[in-house]
Amino acid sequence: MDPEQKVKELGLELPDVQIGDRPLIPWVRSGNLLYLSGKTPGSGKQGQVGKDLSTEEGYQAARDCAIGQLAVAKAALGDLNKVKRVVKVLGMVNAVPEFTEQPQVINGFSDLLVEVFGENGRHARSAVGMGSLPGNASVEVEVIFEVE
Amino acid sequence: MDPEQKVKELGLELPDVQIGDRPLIPWVRSGNLLYLSGKTPGSGKQGQVGKDLSTEEGYQAARDCAIGQLAVAKAALGDLNKVKRVVKVLGMVNAVPEFTEQPQVINGFSDLLVEVFGENGRHARSAVGMGSLPGNASVEVEVIFEVE
Amino acid sequence: MDPEQKVKELGLELPDVQIGDRPLIPWVRSGNLLYLSGKTPGSGKQGQVGKDLSTEEGYQAARDCAIGQLAVAKAALGDLNKVKRVVKVLGMVNAVPEFTEQPQVINGFSDLLVEVFGENGRHARSAVGMGSLPGNASVEVEVIFEVE
Repeated sequence: MDPEQKVKELGLELPDVQIGDRPLIPWVRSGNLLYLSGKTPGSGKQGQVGKDLSTEEGYQAARDCAIGQLAVAKAALGDLNKVKRVVKVLGMVNAVPEFTEQPQVINGFSDLLVEVFGENGRHARSAVGMGSLPGNASVEVEVIFEVE
Repeated sequence: MDPEQKVKELGLELPDVQIGDRPLIPWVRSGNLLYLSGKTPGSGKQGQVGKDLSTEEGYQAARDCAIGQLAVAKAALGDLNKVKRVVKVLGMVNAVPEFTEQPQVINGFSDLLVEVFGENGRHARSAVGMGSLPGNASVEVEVIFEVE
Repeated sequence: MDPEQKVKELGLELPDVQIGDRPLIPWVRSGNLLYLSGKTPGSGKQGQVGKDLSTEEGYQAARDCAIGQLAVAKAALGDLNKVKRVVKVLGMVNAVPEFTEQPQVINGFSDLLVEVFGENGRHARSAVGMGSLPGNASVEVEVIFEVE
């Protein structure tokens, strides 16, 4: 399985990754672990799931986060083939208190990782509901990759 | 201290662990770290702590999560003696905004780990309040073990 | 860059760190990673940001958390020069649902780490809004350091 090839087949457009000069950076590598900062979807996905967005819209927002994190991994490593596996995902959904389908939302993130990395894309995960998110984002997802 | 023996002494019944074929899996090992997916209690523990459940009921729900995570560690390792130590716990409580006793709830998880692993069961932790949790679970806890 | 010297120059007073005898401990080291428990600010910083505290007051509360975590790192390592870099921060803000400036709050934590550790203080991060926090704390921050 070649994740670079897979990204092309899926027609994913990986956005530019800006490192900037702030304390917060998109990734840090320590040993064989690559820690990625939480990623929110692009514009037009703001609001609370269960009120402003449906579960399906949340799924698409989470898929957007996965595209963003693939871009970060590519910027960090140069080649997605250097990802050995996806280790751990924390999927955070901006949801109303009575919302219960956080896993179905975060599947938008998880499913894309498995489309791209196959068996190595499967991961440990928590998918949970937040009280609020930056800029009223509907979803934010952080992830740890094991890398070569 | 033999954690397998301790599980027997405490009369804990470790539930079956299903791996399934989904992107989400119960654990991922990377090097000597074993990352476990967030675990919720069994049925009958739903609701918000501070409204639907008391702190003490939350404590019992968190203890349920610990039993579930012991089952995952056993499935991953074959023998709980292969756990070198508990490293880090993220304890997430489904709570009303005015709830303040998240640590007392998550102690239900932490106390059981120390009962089973002794000194090696002590861990770094955050115990915090979520806006909502999957299936209206009252508690969800993820954990990292260091393993042989 | 000497972080010990920097702490002095900034006039930071690192509080005492109590390890105690509870399941929860302030830090766990595993390999070259030092996991620190979530830290809340000192007294007088309680409440929800966006209602009881302004973003600027939240920033100061997050800075307090950083001072607390520096104290933990110093207690763990004996000398802050043994920190190789800051790896990952999870910044949790006790906020009302409509609050959107979690990053600006957690910058109080991140900025101080960069003041003390320079380039090595930059880190991967999520800054998110919680439904509630222990003791009605306004902010809680956990962090992973890479150490010698």
